[in-house]
Amino acid sequence: MRAVVLLSGGLDSYTAAAIARDEGFTLNALTVSYGQRHAEELAAARRVARALGVERHLELPLDLRGIGGSSLTTDAPVPRDRDVSEEGIPSTYVPARNTIFLSLAMGWAEVLGASDIFLGVNALDYSGYPDCRPEFIAAFEKLAAVATKAGVEGTPMRIHAPLISLTKAEIIRRGLALGLDYGLTHSCYDPGPSGHPCGRCDSCTIRARGFAEANAIDPVLQR
Amino acid sequence: MRAVVLLSGGLDSYTAAAIARDEGFTLNALTVSYGQRHAEELAAARRVARALGVERHLELPLDLRGIGGSSLTTDAPVPRDRDVSEEGIPSTYVPARNTIFLSLAMGWAEVLGASDIFLGVNALDYSGYPDCRPEFIAAFEKLAAVATKAGVEGTPMRIHAPLISLTKAEIIRRGLALGLDYGLTHSCYDPGPSGHPCGRCDSCTIRARGFAEANAIDPVLQR
Repeated sequence: MRAVVLLSGGLDSYTAAAIARDEGFTLNALTVSYGQRHAEELAAARRVARALGVERHLELPLDLRGIGGSSLTTDAPVPRDRDVSEEGIPSTYVPARNTIFLSLAMGWAEVLGASDIFLGVNALDYSGYPDCRPEFIAAFEKLAAVATKAGVEGTPMRIHAPLISLTKAEIIRRGLALGLDYGLTHSCYDPGPSGHPCGRCDSCTIRARGFAEANAIDPVLQR
Repeated sequence: MRAVVLLSGGLDSYTAAAIARDEGFTLNALTVSYGQRHAEELAAARRVARALGVERHLELPLDLRGIGGSSLTTDAPVPRDRDVSEEGIPSTYVPARNTIFLSLAMGWAEVLGASDIFLGVNALDYSGYPDCRPEFIAAFEKLAAVATKAGVEGTPMRIHAPLISLTKAEIIRRGLALGLDYGLTHSCYDPGPSGHPCGRCDSCTIRARGFAEANAIDPVLQR
């Protein structure tokens, strides 16, 4: 059984992909390089894909800077030292990102004859993005049933978001139980020239809290 | 009122955009250059955008050749002299194309503060692609309501497909009544080196039949 997994190079998508593999799927990894401000994420995605033993790793360039609207795809500053439990959607939200990524994954899945897509979205610890919620995943699955040749011919696409209701600590525990090496991953929104995490953006803050709550040490910080 | 219109350079998207303008929208045109085999479509999209007087024209490169699966994005031959009333989905189907394009339009609309997206899909005369049917449009609109910041904050996105139940002849009559110059457009899937339409692919066949049924002359064939 073949699955398409969206792989960013971060901790969540690595864990989601490992769960897919653990469920018996052969993995085909899709990494969208969407004009992120640094190459560190892509390098991490390649390391993770190799470690997972994927069948194929497709890197698809898509420059979202023309669309703009996010501090991750423009020159706007990434927020630091923010209270991540704050209400509202932060400036790191990339408009329609998961819809775009799932659409691309759906197209590739159709070509590969795969009916399963895995992604690492997470509703609890994920800065409040609208496209990381269960109702978004359910709506996309309904769309896929009418949008594709396979869906029309009777093979609906399943969208798996195995982390959606886990806390970051639970995700980390699950991954460690699966033997994952989180030292391969990269989470920071705004690393310095060395590629080292800043420790102050939302992503670093949430990751640090997750490792602390899981009573584990983040191997990335050991380097 | 601002709208995002998906503009391919073909006859349908030009007409859909003109209908949006006629309804009072200020147009922002999005053209995705997805690894089509010829540049003629992009040139047509630029001509059409200029003629429509759009506020912005964003050309977004997205190379779908990595995904493959269609005779429009691979080296597979485009079918010729096919009976276009035949059942089934032809090889020119690009997996998930309209889902991908609408996702990108939705992201841009969100950045522009627009709540309306127009596209020229057409269920009757469109070769039987699954993502050109009313149920697809309805499912995407439901997805948009939960996928975007604007949707969550109470401004749902409206997806307009004003041509969806029109025949090609009706579309052409509508466009001519709006004063459109179809000589600016390009429809052929497989033009020769001169850019001249082949006259034998599905797109040429359907276009020729449309002009004939509308009792109109296709200005593209007059050149």
